[in-house]
Amino acid sequence: MQRIAIVGLGLIGGSLGLALKAAKLPNVEVVGCDKDTSAMAKARKVGAVDRTAWTVRGAVENAALVIIATPVFAIRKVLTEAGDVLAPDCVVTDTGSTKLAVMGWAQELLPPQVSFVGGHPMAGKEKSGIDAAEATLFKDKPYCLIPAPQASEAAVRVVNGLIKAVGATAVFVDAAEHDQYAAAISHLPLILSGALFTLVRNSPSWPDMAKLAGSGFHDLTRLASSDPTMSHDICLTNRQALIHWLDRFLGELSRYRELLQEGREEDLFQRLTKTEMDREVFISRREAASGPLVPEIPGLADQMTSFLVGDRLARRAKEIGQLLTGEIPRDKLERPPKR
Amino acid sequence: MQRIAIVGLGLIGGSLGLALKAAKLPNVEVVGCDKDTSAMAKARKVGAVDRTAWTVRGAVENAALVIIATPVFAIRKVLTEAGDVLAPDCVVTDTGSTKLAVMGWAQELLPPQVSFVGGHPMAGKEKSGIDAAEATLFKDKPYCLIPAPQASEAAVRVVNGLIKAVGATAVFVDAAEHDQYAAAISHLPLILSGALFTLVRNSPSWPDMAKLAGSGFHDLTRLASSDPTMSHDICLTNRQALIHWLDRFLGELSRYRELLQEGREEDLFQRLTKTEMDREVFISRREAASGPLVPEIPGLADQMTSFLVGDRLARRAKEIGQLLTGEIPRDKLERPPKR
Repeated sequence: MQRIAIVGLGLIGGSLGLALKAAKLPNVEVVGCDKDTSAMAKARKVGAVDRTAWTVRGAVENAALVIIATPVFAIRKVLTEAGDVLAPDCVVTDTGSTKLAVMGWAQELLPPQVSFVGGHPMAGKEKSGIDAAEATLFKDKPYCLIPAPQASEAAVRVVNGLIKAVGATAVFVDAAEHDQYAAAISHLPLILSGALFTLVRNSPSWPDMAKLAGSGFHDLTRLASSDPTMSHDICLTNRQALIHWLDRFLGELSRYRELLQEGREEDLFQRLTKTEMDREVFISRREAASGPLVPEIPGLADQMTSFLVGDRLARRAKEIGQLLTGEIPRDKLERPPKR
Repeated sequence: MQRIAIVGLGLIGGSLGLALKAAKLPNVEVVGCDKDTSAMAKARKVGAVDRTAWTVRGAVENAALVIIATPVFAIRKVLTEAGDVLAPDCVVTDTGSTKLAVMGWAQELLPPQVSFVGGHPMAGKEKSGIDAAEATLFKDKPYCLIPAPQASEAAVRVVNGLIKAVGATAVFVDAAEHDQYAAAISHLPLILSGALFTLVRNSPSWPDMAKLAGSGFHDLTRLASSDPTMSHDICLTNRQALIHWLDRFLGELSRYRELLQEGREEDLFQRLTKTEMDREVFISRREAASGPLVPEIPGLADQMTSFLVGDRLARRAKEIGQLLTGEIPRDKLERPPKR
């Protein structure tokens, strides 16, 4: 009987447990542990774990694989507590949102014979906590794999096996690259989502606007519901990269504002069209592969899109020719109805 | 036999047709029309319309209700074309994303005996076009209703009936208010989504980042797939309100940046926690009502949230006490692993 320990039974830890149980690995016992006892009770009830332990040390003792699925900052605490109880050939992985800090802590705090292979599943949903956990959360999702320099090949195979067992696709990446990429595709969206919700929520018109908010507002603010401890730890451990991307985003948004302010309709339309077509390529490539890992062919797609944008722009320019040539005065577009 | 004409058979027009057909209204014929003939063929095939007409004039002739479901700027063109063929007691509505410009055009271009009742369903999805249309798109969604000053009571009842028939919930709102609210909850998210996608897509690391992009990036950039003509028309006809909200958002985002830059962890955590709890209230109120229209009780929810945020903050401060009191040096959090 091999033991897998999951420390942290929230959305990610709970879903990993459910996915592992659903994979019906032979001779495997899943032991869970969480500082919240009601999360442990629920994890047992839904079958995400075979049993739970009261302490981190109790959970990881004799485990062949330890999965730390807590917010980033708590990973340090778990590594500190677990370090000297781990079996010598134990493999440790985590699911933290940032990787440079975690890789550093693992190197500092784990005994040299323990292999650490960092991980980060790129999966999430509206709600956090064990109640939101599901076995299919990782299906066809990318799952970052960051082996520590000293990790054994066997350890990398174990974590790769875990990723396959839960239905995800492993993507090997360097810790520094991971944190830069995650800042752009995950942490920046998190802050944008929060800022959008805060801004609109704090408007005096919120009670009226809340009645009208549809699926667009819902989707764009979904990440504002993220666990604040998780978000806070991301901000603490990936601050520089996040500030870098925030600054770039502020610049990008200011360019949109400029186009609007200066009334450069044609440039704006061109930008909107190119964006839509580029995203179409992104989505369709993903769907065609029913997985995320089809390589881009740099250059080719760009040329094609430019060609098509040019074509659409010409058609559109004809359609709105009246407008662009001033046949309909601009001020007619925005004036209020006569009463 | 009463005729309903739908001009524009995209996602919204097609879905309205499907929803109307699903409602099985007795003695109603739905006639569709689109400048794209393949959209017309598909609308007939999926049963969104009973038949199609080659011209706007052909579609709206003798219709009791005309629904204009095109991008905003095309509404002006349709009103111009249709104006003098409309039956004297005809009711005209639209589904345009902005309302001040449309209400002005209706007043200018429609014969006085025709009633115009502006509309805007707050529903959408990833894809546009008739292929994405579905009968349940409007179910439990808010649907703005903006009667023109001269619209008859009977006309308002007709459009209200349409909204009920497709499963949505009518929300009466003033055109100017609508455009301000929509700028915040719909048009600002549209621009943010586009700017985020453009920024990340144009990064040299995009081919690698695209492999890792998960559900957060997907949701936050969904609106970047919106029809560019629709988006462009929104920008043309709601420019001032959009610039106003863009400026406020740039300010809000800069405040997040400041907290990060200055390392004000406690303020940041407080803000993230309050945002999460406020959104929880927003979502749960909506779910509890299985509809969007439960009124807020101003003050009460705020007091409750402040109390709970304070409590969570105290617990968290204890948890990260080590960090805040400097027991773990800040630079230890971000340094790369030793190699």
